[in-house]
Amino acid sequence: MSGRITLAEIAAEAGVSLATISKVLNGRSDVAATTRARVEEHLNRHGYTRRSTQQHAELIELVFHELESSWSMQVVEGVEDVAAAAGMSVVLTVSGNRHSPAPDWIEGVLRRRPAGVVLVFSDISAPHREKLRTRGIPFAIVDPAGDPSPDVPSVGSANWAGGLAATRHLIDLGHRRIAAITGPEDMMCSLARVDGYRSAMNAAGLPIDEAWIRYGDFHPGGGEARARELLALPDPPTAIFAGSDLQALGTISAARDAGLSVPSDLSVVGYDDIALARWMSPQLTTVHQPLRRMGEEATRLVLRMAQGAEPDTLRMDLATHLVVRGSTSAPPA
Amino acid sequence: MSGRITLAEIAAEAGVSLATISKVLNGRSDVAATTRARVEEHLNRHGYTRRSTQQHAELIELVFHELESSWSMQVVEGVEDVAAAAGMSVVLTVSGNRHSPAPDWIEGVLRRRPAGVVLVFSDISAPHREKLRTRGIPFAIVDPAGDPSPDVPSVGSANWAGGLAATRHLIDLGHRRIAAITGPEDMMCSLARVDGYRSAMNAAGLPIDEAWIRYGDFHPGGGEARARELLALPDPPTAIFAGSDLQALGTISAARDAGLSVPSDLSVVGYDDIALARWMSPQLTTVHQPLRRMGEEATRLVLRMAQGAEPDTLRMDLATHLVVRGSTSAPPA
Repeated sequence: MSGRITLAEIAAEAGVSLATISKVLNGRSDVAATTRARVEEHLNRHGYTRRSTQQHAELIELVFHELESSWSMQVVEGVEDVAAAAGMSVVLTVSGNRHSPAPDWIEGVLRRRPAGVVLVFSDISAPHREKLRTRGIPFAIVDPAGDPSPDVPSVGSANWAGGLAATRHLIDLGHRRIAAITGPEDMMCSLARVDGYRSAMNAAGLPIDEAWIRYGDFHPGGGEARARELLALPDPPTAIFAGSDLQALGTISAARDAGLSVPSDLSVVGYDDIALARWMSPQLTTVHQPLRRMGEEATRLVLRMAQGAEPDTLRMDLATHLVVRGSTSAPPA
Repeated sequence: MSGRITLAEIAAEAGVSLATISKVLNGRSDVAATTRARVEEHLNRHGYTRRSTQQHAELIELVFHELESSWSMQVVEGVEDVAAAAGMSVVLTVSGNRHSPAPDWIEGVLRRRPAGVVLVFSDISAPHREKLRTRGIPFAIVDPAGDPSPDVPSVGSANWAGGLAATRHLIDLGHRRIAAITGPEDMMCSLARVDGYRSAMNAAGLPIDEAWIRYGDFHPGGGEARARELLALPDPPTAIFAGSDLQALGTISAARDAGLSVPSDLSVVGYDDIALARWMSPQLTTVHQPLRRMGEEATRLVLRMAQGAEPDTLRMDLATHLVVRGSTSAPPA
């Protein structure tokens, strides 16, 4: 293509051999750090992108910051299914925190030369993004933790609408004192769910005591601790929107310890609809998040980009819907 | 080494070029099936094993036949941890059934040239085993489904002792009519657990009605269906050893539908101790199976073999122990 810079030109400009450029592109460790940095800088300055798709391994990289959540398996299944149908294998890495993978993660990816990268609950730093771009390795994010940069392809779900639906259901049952436990305060999905809760309360003309809103960690222990605080309030809530199914389990445990029965004394709504939600006692009323489909869509997006297609849209939010089961009822008289 | 056949000799004997042999060893698809079969046969006949470990990618292959069980994540975490500490990434494949991976799985493995393979709940066919052996790719199995060949390295847990401990606990509480739901009849772990149950009953001098022993599928739905049958017996059991935590959830659901309270009307013991077991209502009494450690040990074994070590022992069974929580109590008076 006219105007497109060649690797030979970049090598001449950076004062290194073509072999060195190739080593840097492939994540090899036998290049001095300063040389590597200089080469990366020249690659970035010219907006170089490796073109040939034949050079990629038949691999999709899938990066989690933790696996322990019950819902991660559903995302893995979705990614696995779409990858397998495309003849790809999945490399699973647990790395970093919920904001980004650990710094050394990227070198392994460059060495393996995958067809694409799917990150779950992690954003991707600008240097990592540049490194993937120059190697022509597309990536997408499933349900980002914070505000993903607007130019990063991502697949999420309708968190605000989910929070709204959960709270409306409780209002419709007759609840007035409704509390919300959401995830960590620095995660966009936490904020969106609690904003949905606020809007439902406001729309119904119900006042919100700020003591009713608590930030948890999406785990059972966090749900239990926050629910214990809520149930110890002078005028405790009759219903709790628990923000995740695991926090709902912790909430039910706290209720049991306080001698309360779910749902007759306390209604509880979860979020996620993990596979076990319908096997809980009581069966969990929850907001269904299409976790498996989110993994599928992110993988499809990455595979299309690997074949040279531009994504139709950079952000896709899949619909959520409320599943009413046994953990909600009218408030105690 | 003297006496060791070279690839050049095998090539001459099989009447193919060295390049063809190399393609077959690396799982490349551009070799006729008949040629491939002839080369494999010559490699096997001479017990050829590729020596150089430098030729392997920094990958561990992890193969599941299904991911949906809640316990699979724990195995994945164990494998991931040990692999990451050794600088390896994990390729996750969901393939085949609980007896062996799908036939086409092996070609991808040969192309990727991993340092080793960990199979979960799958045995490995003789032709697959030969292919891995000739390429010098070691493998180990986590918790095999059937009778694993005695020469296949595997890591399991003390299933018989677990079944014994679960049943003894129920006997000690005063139960006499104790039923057992185990996994599929063609899985060694199912048989071992139910044999532990039989031995505990026999040792206590308690008769076993054969109608009390049911084979499930290790999933909630199977547990629910089998428990429903047990509770419909003319003289129903007062306690059920449910064979897995998921089946225990199904059993509790069946009890609830029958108007029975757990544990006051029916005691239930699970098996596995999945992360959510302590968050169930009631909290689940269960046999702890060290799933994460089983994944870790199998991976360590494979990594040691990849470095040329012979395994100290081909079969390792990690200990299980009973965790008493809230789903068991004395039988109703």
